[in-house]
Amino acid sequence: MPYVNIRITKEDATAEQKKQLIKGVTNLLADVLGKNPKTTVVIIDEVDTDNWGIEGEAVTDIRKK
Amino acid sequence: MPYVNIRITKEDATAEQKKQLIKGVTNLLADVLGKNPKTTVVIIDEVDTDNWGIEGEAVTDIRKK
Amino acid sequence: MPYVNIRITKEDATAEQKKQLIKGVTNLLADVLGKNPKTTVVIIDEVDTDNWGIEGEAVTDIRKK
Amino acid sequence: MPYVNIRITKEDATAEQKKQLIKGVTNLLADVLGKNPKTTVVIIDEVDTDNWGIEGEAVTDIRKK
Amino acid sequence: MPYVNIRITKEDATAEQKKQLIKGVTNLLADVLGKNPKTTVVIIDEVDTDNWGIEGEAVTDIRKK
Amino acid sequence: MPYVNIRITKEDATAEQKKQLIKGVTNLLADVLGKNPKTTVVIIDEVDTDNWGIEGEAVTDIRKK
Repeated sequence: MPYVNIRITKEDATAEQKKQLIKGVTNLLADVLGKNPKTTVVIIDEVDTDNWGIEGEAVTDIRKK
Repeated sequence: MPYVNIRITKEDATAEQKKQLIKGVTNLLADVLGKNPKTTVVIIDEVDTDNWGIEGEAVTDIRKK
Repeated sequence: MPYVNIRITKEDATAEQKKQLIKGVTNLLADVLGKNPKTTVVIIDEVDTDNWGIEGEAVTDIRKK
Repeated sequence: MPYVNIRITKEDATAEQKKQLIKGVTNLLADVLGKNPKTTVVIIDEVDTDNWGIEGEAVTDIRKK
Repeated sequence: MPYVNIRITKEDATAEQKKQLIKGVTNLLADVLGKNPKTTVVIIDEVDTDNWGIEGEAVTDIRKK
Repeated sequence: MPYVNIRITKEDATAEQKKQLIKGVTNLLADVLGKNPKTTVVIIDEVDTDNWGIEGEAVTDIRKK
């Protein structure tokens, strides 16, 4: 019954890649902790690069360097 | 002063239904715990079905079955 | 399949009251949006009053006034 | 290595203001706790006013008053 | 630079298992999306079974059945 | 009416430092976006170093190096 929230910058993840993340995390929780995939919830948030900061800067600006 | 975050798939919730959720959760916290509605914050996140997984699959694919 | 996170200050919520919150939010989502209770997840976080701020002050200090 | 999530209503924050928030929070964590800016992550979520409630009402309706 | 939050019930995860989750999710994001492990943050929240509800019931009660 | 969640490792933040974070973030949102301090909520989560990973490792292990 785990809940997993993956937050990434909104750049280029395809629907296929997002499926791989969902499948991969669900399997990981089943393998490591025996968690039931039936009730494992995974939510992916894609965040605009203007809204994501690291090192005190927006990713939009870091990408330009 | 509670904070409530409701995450649902982005499918068909209307503004009217979202008002009912906000009102309903706020009342519930006042009724059960005596929390002051004035500072009860409710945020609803609507998540694309490609980005929501359960049972190791994206909801987009589950909806097609 | 909704996910709900309720955050309250850690003060005096009993196990019984937490059950009422879980039941109440789950019913609300079923009533308003037709969401299936079987996969509705509710997580309650109880936060130390030193770690919760409003109006620029810790709740610990607000409670002393 | 802190993680900060700032949630505001989606109204009128500019890219410039978001940069100031990212810079300001990162500096605050360095100043107060000595946290390394290199690994301080800040994510700003802008939430539709229909999806944000306070006092049991959607902000959309509060703004109309 | 992804941020991953894994929420599980506080039951019996060992430090070793938590390391496997951290390593596994970090590798998954590198493999699927090419994300840099250096800035991939993983936070595991372990939640009391009184505070986690599914199907309208606290996990504490579900475990007793 | 902003909501801010600051997540840090549970190491040595004092109540006094947490007050400074609450005050500092609240002021920042007032200064940059004109947000009303009265309804600005700040929650600080302190996370066990076993439960926080970066670079694929638990912070507990990184601290030992």
